[in-house]
Amino acid sequence: MTDETRRTILKGAGLAVAGLGASRAGAAQRTIGYAIVGLGSYATRQIMPNFKGCDHARLVALVSGTPEKLQRYGEQYGVPATHRYSYADYDRIRDNPDIDVVYVVLPNSMHAEYSIRAAQAGKHVMCEKPMAISAAECQAMIDASRKAGKLLMIGYRSRFEPYNRLAIDLARRGHVGPTRIITAEHGFPIQPNQWRLDRPLSGGGSLMDIGIYSLNAARYLSGEEPVAVSAIEATDRSDPRFRTVEDRISFLLRFPSGIEATCVSSYSSAHNGYRVVGTQGWIDMEPATPYSGHVMRIRKDGAEAPRTLPDPPKNQFAGQLDHLAECILNGTRPIVPGEEGLADLRVMEAIYQSAAERRTIDLSA
Amino acid sequence: MTDETRRTILKGAGLAVAGLGASRAGAAQRTIGYAIVGLGSYATRQIMPNFKGCDHARLVALVSGTPEKLQRYGEQYGVPATHRYSYADYDRIRDNPDIDVVYVVLPNSMHAEYSIRAAQAGKHVMCEKPMAISAAECQAMIDASRKAGKLLMIGYRSRFEPYNRLAIDLARRGHVGPTRIITAEHGFPIQPNQWRLDRPLSGGGSLMDIGIYSLNAARYLSGEEPVAVSAIEATDRSDPRFRTVEDRISFLLRFPSGIEATCVSSYSSAHNGYRVVGTQGWIDMEPATPYSGHVMRIRKDGAEAPRTLPDPPKNQFAGQLDHLAECILNGTRPIVPGEEGLADLRVMEAIYQSAAERRTIDLSA
Repeated sequence: MTDETRRTILKGAGLAVAGLGASRAGAAQRTIGYAIVGLGSYATRQIMPNFKGCDHARLVALVSGTPEKLQRYGEQYGVPATHRYSYADYDRIRDNPDIDVVYVVLPNSMHAEYSIRAAQAGKHVMCEKPMAISAAECQAMIDASRKAGKLLMIGYRSRFEPYNRLAIDLARRGHVGPTRIITAEHGFPIQPNQWRLDRPLSGGGSLMDIGIYSLNAARYLSGEEPVAVSAIEATDRSDPRFRTVEDRISFLLRFPSGIEATCVSSYSSAHNGYRVVGTQGWIDMEPATPYSGHVMRIRKDGAEAPRTLPDPPKNQFAGQLDHLAECILNGTRPIVPGEEGLADLRVMEAIYQSAAERRTIDLSA
Repeated sequence: MTDETRRTILKGAGLAVAGLGASRAGAAQRTIGYAIVGLGSYATRQIMPNFKGCDHARLVALVSGTPEKLQRYGEQYGVPATHRYSYADYDRIRDNPDIDVVYVVLPNSMHAEYSIRAAQAGKHVMCEKPMAISAAECQAMIDASRKAGKLLMIGYRSRFEPYNRLAIDLARRGHVGPTRIITAEHGFPIQPNQWRLDRPLSGGGSLMDIGIYSLNAARYLSGEEPVAVSAIEATDRSDPRFRTVEDRISFLLRFPSGIEATCVSSYSSAHNGYRVVGTQGWIDMEPATPYSGHVMRIRKDGAEAPRTLPDPPKNQFAGQLDHLAECILNGTRPIVPGEEGLADLRVMEAIYQSAAERRTIDLSA
């Protein structure tokens, strides 16, 4: 038995685990059971290993179309055969009381269907970003969860990461003066032959996958919703990677207070950073939204210095998993509910529309 | 007699100045005489003190509307009363054979008139950026210099600065792979009550004054002319500084090869940087276009390092002054001729048009 398996079982059994500290010991009285839907790289490498750092969340079920994955990860995480589901069996999660939350980690175009079916099965939903491939789908997901009386949260992990939380706090408090400009860049040179490059599965290219971080950062750093959007796309359609989805799409946002954001989204160059520029200086993050290794620098009144935070008790993945669990336990609303995913999709649709129609889109209505 | 005055006189007399090295000693056989038109801060603090570092250029005349300035700077730089002009006397420069070049450092809206009159007086022209306040004015300036058979150069000092020259070379050679994205930001919180905030004198706000550095960098780093331009403006018209000119105007450019640029121009926040991002890394400059103190970092194949250059024998100001002098002496064309200033104005007009008409402007025609 691995340490992970033992800990999962101990916590699942409601026993306090020695050495985890007071909050974890106390929390062990009730934990929220998660089913992971889609056992791809992000689920198996980033999400599942991080349940061990959670106070209130535990992995109890797996859903996959690949029997070998169900067996391998089932054994690794102590998920018994009764809690392993194929997609054909998916709706049977309704009958499993151990499953409180269904976490949808499927290709983008499947988010809406599997989230709605989870809500219809009486489960809370965590869904990866982008929430879906259209604002209409997002609204349907919100409606389904509301009708079921269950929570819906989107996997915006950076909101559970201390540097990003500090950046939000400093920016909104005007630490470097009122924000005037936000620059945000996200991108990576994508490898060929993956579902992200197949529009029916992804719903779009770099913007859906990585540019969404630039957009979401501009929104959470400003605390506002954009009223004007303009975008220009650059895609080499002769590149076999970009036959059906866009490569680069840069966009400008104007917010009600007058903040302007310039944003980069790229599938052919590497970017991971943002900067909030106020009247008296700036807050810079690079990398801004990595899995680990965030770097913050602050310039204020002419002096520049790095800002280093202690390692948090919980990493962003565990923080995200625990947050929904706590919301369920406490009857509170997630800080990144379905409406947050919908807000991004609304703007992303405007970005695509602006690039296609070569005009600025008004979102103030 | 100050050292500066003595050196100017020695060089003016065609004598080799001991200790300046072989090239300066050789060059002293013929120097080009400059008249400075407009004795504001930039002329008196940045340009005039740097003639002392020139091999081929010397300060021989001054033009100002303020008699006290003519006297003070005339005495400081050894410019005799016969070579000091008021604006009423301006056209008399025609009769002064010591003046080879007229360097126009006036408010933007006066660039065209004073450059054209200098050409008509048979003089070569150096003109500060922005070249003028419209593309039509730029064309008239080009035509006037061509008709006079004289050179016209625009004061793009960064092109004579080693870090920017290296960045151009590295970017165009594909040192970090083919360029995919350029980000460029320039701005500063402007003080109230100056001609730059008075549209009849400035022709525009931050874009004309400081955003032009973002635009010009995107053009010289890509080596291409943009084919699509989109912009969004954000100006608080209740701020007394911005009654007649824009505060912030962000813009996107797409170049023929597919390079995209996201650019910031601001009069209410501080920015001075650019980054060229290729498929294998990036070249970062911050500050990118200061008077001194440039900082370059290069990331390539996953490793990041600063790049430090030795101090150049000539700073960018002396380099710029000498370049036009050498072009005159050698019968060659400046690397930043009037056509370079016109190219920026064409794009700036498109930026303003895009922001006003809320649409992407096609410049491919």
